Amino acid sequence: MTAASNQDVSASLVIIGDEILSGRTKDANLSYLALWLNEAGIQLHEVRVVPDVEAEIVGAVNALRAKYDYVFTTGGIGPTHDDITVDSIAAAFGVPVIVHPEAYAQMEAYFGAENFTPARQRMARVPEGAELIPNPVSIAPGIRIENVFIMAGVPKIMQAMLEGIRGVLRTGRKVWTQALTIHAPESKIAGGLGAIQEAHAETSIGSYPFSREGRYGAQIVVRSPEEGAVTAAITEIAQFCAREGFETSGLSALE
Amino acid sequence: MTAASNQDVSASLVIIGDEILSGRTKDANLSYLALWLNEAGIQLHEVRVVPDVEAEIVGAVNALRAKYDYVFTTGGIGPTHDDITVDSIAAAFGVPVIVHPEAYAQMEAYFGAENFTPARQRMARVPEGAELIPNPVSIAPGIRIENVFIMAGVPKIMQAMLEGIRGVLRTGRKVWTQALTIHAPESKIAGGLGAIQEAHAETSIGSYPFSREGRYGAQIVVRSPEEGAVTAAITEIAQFCAREGFETSGLSALE
Repeated sequence: MTAASNQDVSASLVIIGDEILSGRTKDANLSYLALWLNEAGIQLHEVRVVPDVEAEIVGAVNALRAKYDYVFTTGGIGPTHDDITVDSIAAAFGVPVIVHPEAYAQMEAYFGAENFTPARQRMARVPEGAELIPNPVSIAPGIRIENVFIMAGVPKIMQAMLEGIRGVLRTGRKVWTQALTIHAPESKIAGGLGAIQEAHAETSIGSYPFSREGRYGAQIVVRSPEEGAVTAAITEIAQFCAREGFETSGLSALE
Repeated sequence: MTAASNQDVSASLVIIGDEILSGRTKDANLSYLALWLNEAGIQLHEVRVVPDVEAEIVGAVNALRAKYDYVFTTGGIGPTHDDITVDSIAAAFGVPVIVHPEAYAQMEAYFGAENFTPARQRMARVPEGAELIPNPVSIAPGIRIENVFIMAGVPKIMQAMLEGIRGVLRTGRKVWTQALTIHAPESKIAGGLGAIQEAHAETSIGSYPFSREGRYGAQIVVRSPEEGAVTAAITEIAQFCAREGFETSGLSALE
């Protein structure tokens, strides 16, 4: 990572794909990207899922690249007719689509001239002014233009592309997290938890309710860029539960 | 459903929750809602995941309620300090938060006056002018204000709330879907598939690549409000594969 700092560095994700919006396919990239980014000291602030429609992709990318340090997109960079991400992002930047000579040469060398079909050649197209993101899995590269990183939708390829840009991302503070499960309804812990949140304003305390086998509980997650603040708050929550007689489990390591 | 029509009815979803953006929790509502809505003749067009921050919730809800027929939100309606959805959506509509007399009475009757704690009373608060969405699972209701439906984040409760609003949603055309897996790299099928898409403009043909055990393939999904158009396109795709010698599998039923 370059230029690690103590500041917040923000990111957003645009998931491009009718298949997610139809409900047929469950996205597998959001969670991976969020955890990877946080390890790198970058926080994911917003995600949008948009259909394979140019105007929708343009709108989302332009809104998010103005608002956050980085925008990642997943999906729509393959060789088929429904892969319109490159054209859409070129439109978002108001630049033409060109054939990137290096991408073209890499792919031609890999596939061989006789197998470098028009469909494959399509994957050498980039918005003018863009740089390549290496793809060690299947050659056809990802693309970076300014603060937008155009990634594959296939998780294995997206993950490999992330490793390739590790060195170019500006990084800031990691947010530390620790979690604890309380086996009591949220309504019984709400008062105590709210008071602890007020006393630990440098942390963010989330309460995520669940019901298992008819019993209600909540997973409590404490987050802060300051390690010590997380531990202090979670300790106080555990003490509150012990005092009130609420069973707890699953205290996670600080990570 | 009321007033079924032959028109498109559009919906969007705002997933409210730091826990999704941190990557710790995987959303389980998007896919369920998308499939449920399509069965009801309503298409999910956009999803946004936003943090537990009022300004972000306000921005997303106001953008989406102006653009789509319906907006659904999930998360943030429990009794704890981080449950800020009701206040945020009241702010989005520019109305105060009030205690809903019916919600208050229902919950007081269910919990008993002595157990109807301030935390539970918080769940009787709604934006002024809102209606209740029944919650047969855990009583504390969902909320409807104009075209915005405020739902629980816990999947079991969200799903029960959906059943409660089945009768009030305007419904339009269902989109029919049929899928086929082709065991060949996308680059080899792209030309033929593009030609079939052009010849079947009343359908939308998606190609979703995968790799399993080192072999590349793609799931092809054909969608259209016209059943016959889906079958015609998928048949032509199967014939194309047979002609070219591409192995296929997993032809799904039209649904």
